Amino acid sequence: MNVQSGAVDVSLEALKGLLARIFETNGCSSPTAAILADNCAAAEAAGSLGHGVFRVDGYVSSLRSGWVDGAAVPEVRVKGAGYVFVDAKNGFAQAALHAGRDVFVQRIRETGIAILSIRGSHHLAALWPDVTPFAEEGLVAISMVNSFGCSIPMGAKEPLLGTNPLAFAAPIKGAAPLVFDFATTSMANGDVQLAAREGRMLPPGMGVDSNGEPTTDPKKILNGGALVPFGGHKGSAISVMIELMVAGLTGGKFSSEVDWSAHPGAQTPHTGQIIIGIDPSFSEPGGFSSRSSQLIGILREAGMESYPGMRRWRSRGKTHVSISPAILEKLAGYTKEPK
Amino acid sequence: MNVQSGAVDVSLEALKGLLARIFETNGCSSPTAAILADNCAAAEAAGSLGHGVFRVDGYVSSLRSGWVDGAAVPEVRVKGAGYVFVDAKNGFAQAALHAGRDVFVQRIRETGIAILSIRGSHHLAALWPDVTPFAEEGLVAISMVNSFGCSIPMGAKEPLLGTNPLAFAAPIKGAAPLVFDFATTSMANGDVQLAAREGRMLPPGMGVDSNGEPTTDPKKILNGGALVPFGGHKGSAISVMIELMVAGLTGGKFSSEVDWSAHPGAQTPHTGQIIIGIDPSFSEPGGFSSRSSQLIGILREAGMESYPGMRRWRSRGKTHVSISPAILEKLAGYTKEPK
Repeated sequence: MNVQSGAVDVSLEALKGLLARIFETNGCSSPTAAILADNCAAAEAAGSLGHGVFRVDGYVSSLRSGWVDGAAVPEVRVKGAGYVFVDAKNGFAQAALHAGRDVFVQRIRETGIAILSIRGSHHLAALWPDVTPFAEEGLVAISMVNSFGCSIPMGAKEPLLGTNPLAFAAPIKGAAPLVFDFATTSMANGDVQLAAREGRMLPPGMGVDSNGEPTTDPKKILNGGALVPFGGHKGSAISVMIELMVAGLTGGKFSSEVDWSAHPGAQTPHTGQIIIGIDPSFSEPGGFSSRSSQLIGILREAGMESYPGMRRWRSRGKTHVSISPAILEKLAGYTKEPK
Repeated sequence: MNVQSGAVDVSLEALKGLLARIFETNGCSSPTAAILADNCAAAEAAGSLGHGVFRVDGYVSSLRSGWVDGAAVPEVRVKGAGYVFVDAKNGFAQAALHAGRDVFVQRIRETGIAILSIRGSHHLAALWPDVTPFAEEGLVAISMVNSFGCSIPMGAKEPLLGTNPLAFAAPIKGAAPLVFDFATTSMANGDVQLAAREGRMLPPGMGVDSNGEPTTDPKKILNGGALVPFGGHKGSAISVMIELMVAGLTGGKFSSEVDWSAHPGAQTPHTGQIIIGIDPSFSEPGGFSSRSSQLIGILREAGMESYPGMRRWRSRGKTHVSISPAILEKLAGYTKEPK
């Protein structure tokens, strides 16, 4: 028991076990349940709370609605020497990545660059757990996902883009990989939901209400309002690019085409994901990870105390996380068959 | 003569001829002179004035300083089925792209995705002329370039990133390709120089003076001050990614390593460039350009009247541009051997 916050210290192993039981009870195959449990527990441990146990409600609700198939068996097809396609079969994106990953890495190492194109997948997690392992193997990875219509691009009046996150991971010699992962909206949807739940107002410029007027109230953004892209017209262009790259290259749905009206309770966007992987050992004169550590040295000398990914990397040794008893009780409830 | 502005109508053909003579007189090989002349004239015609004839001073000054080799013959080496490397040999990036382009496109079409990695190149132009032709051939292209230390990443105190532009081009069925190209700084360097030349103040938030204090004076930004990345910590992370991808993968210089102190007059960053090309015909169920035109339809329905690249695309039919007599006279002067 963590006396100060009233939270309970839970071992990560126990949390993973609990999460896996929840996912399996609610329709996931055993391998998919384990993949999602690892992902969710790692986010909680890394302090990436918008993608930790907070997300379990959404997973369970979506699984129970019949919207996503937790038992789907992804189909992998190599379309070209550098092009791997995975049909997620309406399952989770993490299971599709797992299914295609070995052949994808083999393609990257053989050709120098490859793309993994996942269609018909549901992604409700962070992207950094997807890309970080590539950097640990000495590869560079970029990933993009589209989601559901909740962001208004510059010049438009309707929320037709998703939060459309972009992630990047690269190896740094002798140090934590450089890894970033962010929504190309002004905020991540999970963080807006957290603020709404906790009754916090947002900084200005994050979104609009149902009349298209700027608001700092997360509830107004979530109920008929919308987010806006980060960084003005440049961020808006990047968010449109992600929509086009992901749905266009995978044949998945555009964010604005995600229609869960027939599945009350559905919360997982049914879209696609792409990952581009590069093997920097093909470059001349080689030594990418040495060069990258030189860049980190330059950044440090210029006063940057940390770089993207460092904080999460340090959390890897964590064996326990603090969770409130109320949330643990709710999670335990999810291990029982729904009535 | 355009009476209103005092500018002269010049045919694009004549302008290209004049520019090619300028580049050749100042040390470019005949093919490189023609490549740069086409590039520069196209920017002028597209209204991309920061990369049009305005740039000629910088080209000539750099060539005369001995900093860049306009007669360099790039060396192309295929490193893997999807990995093409070009050593620009201290020449212009556009000449290196020209040299490696055929084999690069062949690699994209064979493997589904490929990367062109250019080292030791000088890029003083826009990136959209580099990526647009790929979209015209039905391919998707992403390009990144680093430049010279002029932008302070979030958390640092020194300007060690370049303007680090990012460009993207994708085919849209029956319409102009979607093409964007922007500095990942708050503004492009050329636009700051244009504002300084014209005595205009900038909007707030674009950069800092030599004391690190925010300023709207472009001259203070250029003289000892610095730009900042667009879009806060997200834009800053993207700009760091570009630095790492370009200099790391090509073995070229980091922006902060560009040192032209031994070449007074040098203005072209001596770094690298990467282009990633994807052949969307490898995707399932295919039809990328149809899907992309559907996305454009969705954007239009939501009130977006134009998308990135449309305006430039429409300028393609232009046969003439307006240039002031003073600039034409200066350009003519550059066709004479320097004393």
